[in-house]
Amino acid sequence: MTIKYLHDNLEKITENMTYTCEGWILTNRGNEKIRFLTINDGSTIDNLQVVIKNENIKKFKIDSLMLGNSIKVVGNLFLTPNAKQPLEMVANDITLINKTDDGFPIQKKETTLDFLREIPHFRHRTNLFRAIMIIRNSLLFEVHKYFQEHDFINVASPIITSNDGEGAGETLVVDDENKDFFFKQKAFLGVTGQLHAEAYAQGFKKVYTFAPTFRAENSHTSRHLAEFWMIEPEVAFYDLKKIISLADDLLKKVISNTLKKCHSEMKYLDSLQDGKLLPVLNKFIKTKLTIMEYQEVIKELNKVKEQFDEKDIHFGIDLASEHEKYLADKIVNGPVAVINYPKEIKAFYMYQNNDNKTVAAFDLLVPGIGELIGGSQRESRYEYLINRMKELKISIEPLQWYLDLRKYGYAPSSGFGIGFERLIMYVTGIQNIRDVIPFPRVAGIIKM
Amino acid sequence: MTIKYLHDNLEKITENMTYTCEGWILTNRGNEKIRFLTINDGSTIDNLQVVIKNENIKKFKIDSLMLGNSIKVVGNLFLTPNAKQPLEMVANDITLINKTDDGFPIQKKETTLDFLREIPHFRHRTNLFRAIMIIRNSLLFEVHKYFQEHDFINVASPIITSNDGEGAGETLVVDDENKDFFFKQKAFLGVTGQLHAEAYAQGFKKVYTFAPTFRAENSHTSRHLAEFWMIEPEVAFYDLKKIISLADDLLKKVISNTLKKCHSEMKYLDSLQDGKLLPVLNKFIKTKLTIMEYQEVIKELNKVKEQFDEKDIHFGIDLASEHEKYLADKIVNGPVAVINYPKEIKAFYMYQNNDNKTVAAFDLLVPGIGELIGGSQRESRYEYLINRMKELKISIEPLQWYLDLRKYGYAPSSGFGIGFERLIMYVTGIQNIRDVIPFPRVAGIIKM
Repeated sequence: MTIKYLHDNLEKITENMTYTCEGWILTNRGNEKIRFLTINDGSTIDNLQVVIKNENIKKFKIDSLMLGNSIKVVGNLFLTPNAKQPLEMVANDITLINKTDDGFPIQKKETTLDFLREIPHFRHRTNLFRAIMIIRNSLLFEVHKYFQEHDFINVASPIITSNDGEGAGETLVVDDENKDFFFKQKAFLGVTGQLHAEAYAQGFKKVYTFAPTFRAENSHTSRHLAEFWMIEPEVAFYDLKKIISLADDLLKKVISNTLKKCHSEMKYLDSLQDGKLLPVLNKFIKTKLTIMEYQEVIKELNKVKEQFDEKDIHFGIDLASEHEKYLADKIVNGPVAVINYPKEIKAFYMYQNNDNKTVAAFDLLVPGIGELIGGSQRESRYEYLINRMKELKISIEPLQWYLDLRKYGYAPSSGFGIGFERLIMYVTGIQNIRDVIPFPRVAGIIKM
Repeated sequence: MTIKYLHDNLEKITENMTYTCEGWILTNRGNEKIRFLTINDGSTIDNLQVVIKNENIKKFKIDSLMLGNSIKVVGNLFLTPNAKQPLEMVANDITLINKTDDGFPIQKKETTLDFLREIPHFRHRTNLFRAIMIIRNSLLFEVHKYFQEHDFINVASPIITSNDGEGAGETLVVDDENKDFFFKQKAFLGVTGQLHAEAYAQGFKKVYTFAPTFRAENSHTSRHLAEFWMIEPEVAFYDLKKIISLADDLLKKVISNTLKKCHSEMKYLDSLQDGKLLPVLNKFIKTKLTIMEYQEVIKELNKVKEQFDEKDIHFGIDLASEHEKYLADKIVNGPVAVINYPKEIKAFYMYQNNDNKTVAAFDLLVPGIGELIGGSQRESRYEYLINRMKELKISIEPLQWYLDLRKYGYAPSSGFGIGFERLIMYVTGIQNIRDVIPFPRVAGIIKM
């Protein structure tokens, strides 16, 4: 039984029930007659308060117990409905498992996020990172659960690929130590699992990937990593409208289940953010998704262009982050899917609309964050696809297999990608992407 | 509603119930008066039989419908308890979504596994690969579910790492296209997530990774890939005995749930293997795990050494695959965990036993396959660990952070690794590891 289980099931705790707790000490307070240890076992940010009285204080050498020590405590549980914490334990036996050397870097006193980024192997032993990583875990499982309950099959798209990610020069290359073409050709770390997922959607209909992706991103922003996790569903027989509805439903279910499951962690993060986090998420869950044509968005943004650094707003521009945020925050005041973007600013594989100018793409924007999801209906017509590739001077040969999918009973297919860390940022309200992944990788830095 | 749902819920099918099926055609049989299409939607290897009668045959151009075509059929369902398949549909409307060009590589006639390995983007449209990948998906989700239900937290160990995997020269290296040290140091693709998982177990207690790992494996065997998925739980406060018990329970639950969920796929694979697959798995689930000391195993194998190519069997040898298989198949006749191996043949981080000769390691062997899991209790004593690293001439500096974990309340920790593809091979009875992953990567070959 974890401490989380106890907190979630107070009604099952009978007076004097014995309990064994293994965990780490957070605080050691009190006097000669009564002492209080708070212990955390990693299952929740809620701690267990342990009471030690009189002669037991000396017997179990309570004075020597310090922040970070691992211990085992056996005792009796009591509900304490009038106290700050709903239950506590009176200790009958305490075993110190391992002590902490001087200089344990995690101390009670305030530590900065910058400092904690230097010690990714210890920072999860703070309340903040404990909460973030528990929420990360919940989101991960809720995503898998959602897809499995909706008849999706997980596909392991390959990480090592011959595809250079449209030649943008932002891909990482792989080889063996001798650098003599271990794979007999240039090999890259995948920037997306989509193309391979598309192959599997033709046959399994509903598939998804959930795996690390890579980008040789040289910018040191709070929103980019060289290694991050992507969730990419792909559904055959789905058009743009259906895939947007899937994205909307997925987000709402996954977030609302996580709010329930991680109520303590969410409450804690909300309190750190002056109560501004939970209202945003609760509103998101309840608000119907607005769908807006890109051309309509351009018109609306133009009306308020004095708001922006980038004032030249016309058909053909890629929306800047300031535009996206304003749209979601001010114009729509809620989540919005922008659809049918100019084909010039979108990827080669997107379905070309009849207007010959736009493609059946969508970006899902949320207040505060901007883009959370990008997706599209895929170009299902072989001739359209190959012509578009030629126009964009994308080499055909490495992607011939992808073109060939269109030859053999290709059902129209749509899909999208969610940057998993972006989703965690949205749900936790954390501003720097390096704080929502255990061991962040960016240009020039590999810690641990 | 998927075709799987229909087959699993026959009792919910009411006479004449309307149903819409989107999928791909497998066969088109019959005459001028009655035609039968079998359709698969990817949710199961069970197909839906569609009946088209009389004038509808011409109306819907049934003659032109071929293997691989994607179609949409609307019709009425009927239970057919006396027929080979438990239900069928009479079609009222059929829409051909997309036809198949000549030369669709997946044909009814027998195709070899070698041939199918050349077309990983199409081979999942055969019964065999459909079954394998459905089982793969079930195993993946059951693994996540097991850990989540047992209070584990998923940890994203980094893929890009500064750790060269103990310097065995079998690691892949990563850089940007200019090869100018994008990470300002040599960077590798991880061969394990264990070391980072250990850091997180100190604080979260029960953690697991489930992610791709990489090895610059140059051997072209049926058991090795350059890119494969690993499951690595790590539990603080667990010793060798407890972690073995976890491994045993995990395997049994995950396999038994998959046998239930994928009953059709398992039955199909069993039939391809002359009924030899299911009895092995059903026996595995029911058989208590045997635990044997390495030294005892050496003694037993020595008694029958004439059986082996490698006859020199003494304390200190690494068991060969033939030894492991004989042990599980003949001596134990069931799953067996071999424990306490000589320290010379095991990794530096394993807990050194009091005999000064062995470490608290285990390998879990199963009949037919041999090793499925390898794990250990970790060395929790800083001095022992650093001395062992020095003995083995492992550079300390890149792993100082790992050593430091021992300084700050380190609770004894144990864990293991399961090669996910090995597990799929065991459950499906498939002999070549390249057939249980969608897009296999091996030295010299990247297909698609």
